[in-house]
Amino acid sequence: MTAAPSSPAVALSTPVCVLGLGLIGGSLLRALHDAGHEAFGYNRSATTVDAAIGDGYDASADLVATLERAASSDALLVLATPVTTIGPLVTAIAENAPGLLVTDVISVKQEVERLLADLHPGGRYVGGHPMAGTSSSGWAATDATLFDGAMWAVTTTDHTPADDWLTVAALAVTVGSRVVPVAPDAHDRAVAAISHLPHLTAAATAAVGAGESDLALRLAAGSFRDGTRVAGTAPALQRAMIEANGIAVLNVLSETIDRLTAVRDELRDHGTAEVLVDDGHRARKAYEQLHSGAAEVISGVTVGDDGWQQELRRQAHQGRVWVG
Amino acid sequence: MTAAPSSPAVALSTPVCVLGLGLIGGSLLRALHDAGHEAFGYNRSATTVDAAIGDGYDASADLVATLERAASSDALLVLATPVTTIGPLVTAIAENAPGLLVTDVISVKQEVERLLADLHPGGRYVGGHPMAGTSSSGWAATDATLFDGAMWAVTTTDHTPADDWLTVAALAVTVGSRVVPVAPDAHDRAVAAISHLPHLTAAATAAVGAGESDLALRLAAGSFRDGTRVAGTAPALQRAMIEANGIAVLNVLSETIDRLTAVRDELRDHGTAEVLVDDGHRARKAYEQLHSGAAEVISGVTVGDDGWQQELRRQAHQGRVWVG
Repeated sequence: MTAAPSSPAVALSTPVCVLGLGLIGGSLLRALHDAGHEAFGYNRSATTVDAAIGDGYDASADLVATLERAASSDALLVLATPVTTIGPLVTAIAENAPGLLVTDVISVKQEVERLLADLHPGGRYVGGHPMAGTSSSGWAATDATLFDGAMWAVTTTDHTPADDWLTVAALAVTVGSRVVPVAPDAHDRAVAAISHLPHLTAAATAAVGAGESDLALRLAAGSFRDGTRVAGTAPALQRAMIEANGIAVLNVLSETIDRLTAVRDELRDHGTAEVLVDDGHRARKAYEQLHSGAAEVISGVTVGDDGWQQELRRQAHQGRVWVG
Repeated sequence: MTAAPSSPAVALSTPVCVLGLGLIGGSLLRALHDAGHEAFGYNRSATTVDAAIGDGYDASADLVATLERAASSDALLVLATPVTTIGPLVTAIAENAPGLLVTDVISVKQEVERLLADLHPGGRYVGGHPMAGTSSSGWAATDATLFDGAMWAVTTTDHTPADDWLTVAALAVTVGSRVVPVAPDAHDRAVAAISHLPHLTAAATAAVGAGESDLALRLAAGSFRDGTRVAGTAPALQRAMIEANGIAVLNVLSETIDRLTAVRDELRDHGTAEVLVDDGHRARKAYEQLHSGAAEVISGVTVGDDGWQQELRRQAHQGRVWVG
C-alpha cells in the first residue's frame, strides 16, 4: 500500500500560532497561510516581523499579545526556535496560554520534553520534527514548499492523547508532509545518526580539505561540494542541535571513529579499503531503495484504539509512514 | 583578471584516441566528437563498443588496431580506465604506438607515472585529471557536457616539455575545462583531501546511519542524502582510487580521526562541539568563496619560457587556473 497523493484524511481544525520565524518556523507560517489555513506568528526581532508582514503574513513581535490571541482562539502553539532559546517561550506559555496544545519543530525531542516538564508541568505537549531544511537560515530563506513530501516525526508515547496527536499529525499533513510516529528516545538516536553525525563528518571533511591548500580547494568538485554542504549551516544552529543530543551523538560519533580507524589500519597494513567502501555502498543503496517511490503506509490501526501508540511505532520502525 | 568565457586560446591539433569508455572516457569521446573534433575510442567490452557506435561515436574493441590507427595519425592517447587496469594498455602502447604522447584521466598521478616509467620507459607522458564525475558509471552514464566548467589537473614537472603540456592542456580546454597545473605529488595530496577522503567519510556516515534502523533511514533527509551521495559510487572504482593513493589518504584520514576524536572528547567532557563546527563552517565558506564567480587566471607567464613550469605551479597553488 503506497501513500495517497493528496487530500489529507485529517483536517487541522484549529488556528496555528508559530513562535519563531526562522527558516523552519517562517516556512511553516508561509505554508499554512498559502494553503488557506489560519496562521499567525511571533518573532523577537522586529526586523523579521516587518519582513514577514511585508510579505503578506500575520506576525507580531509582542509575545504576550500573541499568546493571548492564541489562547482566545484555542490555537495550536508551535515552538520554532533553537532548543537553546525555548525556555523563555515555554515560561510565557505557562503564564499566558497554559491550556493550549504545544508542539515544536526542533531536532531533538528528549531535551524539549524535559524543558516542557520543568517549566510547564502538566501542559499539553506532542513533539514534532519536520525532516526538512537547507544550510540557509532566517526569514529570507523561508519557503512555503519546504515541507512538501518531507518526513515529519511526531512523538508518540504510551500516554499521548489521541486527539492531541491527531492535531499535530494534521499540522504535518496540511503542509504536505508524511508523519513518522516515534518515541522521543528513538527519535533522538535516529537523528543523531542521520542528521547530527552528518553535520560533524561534513565539518571534519571540510576542515581537512581546506587545510590542505588553495590548490586543493580549487580542485574540489562534486564529492567535496555535496559532502561538506551542511557544514555551511550557521554554527549556532548546528551546535544547538548537536549539543542538545549529546549522548546519542557520542554513540554514533564513536562508531564513526571506530570505522575510520579500522579503514586507516587496513589501508596501512593491507593496502585495502574494502570493508568500509563496501559497507558504505550497501548502506547508501539501502537508503536509495527506501526512498525510491512512495513510502509504505501504516495501516490496520486507528488512532485512539487500544494500544494505537505502540502499533504506530512498531510499523514506523519498519520504515512506514502515517498519512491519516 | 577572470576567465574568458569561450574560444580557447589553444587549439588541439591532433586526433584523440580514448582508451576506456566508462563515465569519464566515454564522456570525453562524446564531448570531443560533439565539439567537431576527431576522436575515436577503444573499450574491451563489445557491449560498450556497440552502445557507443549505436549512439554515433567511433569506437572499437580491437586494441591493437586502435593503437595502430592512433599511431598513423599521431593521435593523443588518453588512458581512461581505473588505475588497476592500465598495465596491459600501457604495455600495448609501448609495443604498438611507442612514439605517441600519452595522457590520462585517472584520479591519482604518482602511481600512473610509476606504471608508465616501468612499462613504457622513455615514453612521452603528461598526466591529466578532470575533476568531474557522478556516482554513476559506464557508457550509459556518459555526458558530453560533463567537463563544462570543470577543473582539469595537468601534471607539470620541471622536465615537462612545453609542446606536450600544451597538447594535454588543449584537450582540457577543448571540452570546456580550466587547467590546473600541478606537480604529481601535490596533486595526490590535494585529491586525497578533497576527493578520496570525502568518499571514506561518506561511507562511514552512510554505514552508521543505515546501521541505526529503518526508522532512521526513513527520517534521513538533506544532510544524509548529500553527505553520503558518493558512497553510492561503484565500490571497485572507489577502491581503485583510494588504494592507489594510500599514503596521502592515510595522512588525511588520520587528521580526520583526530578531529572527530577531539569533538567527541569535548562533547563528552564539556558538552560543546564548538571547535569542529566553527572550523568546518569556516572551511566550507572558504570553499564557497573560492568557487563563487569565475576563477582567477594564471597570467604573466608563457609556456616554454625559462622556468614556466615552476611559475604555473606557483600561481596554481594560489587557486588560479590556466586558460591559454
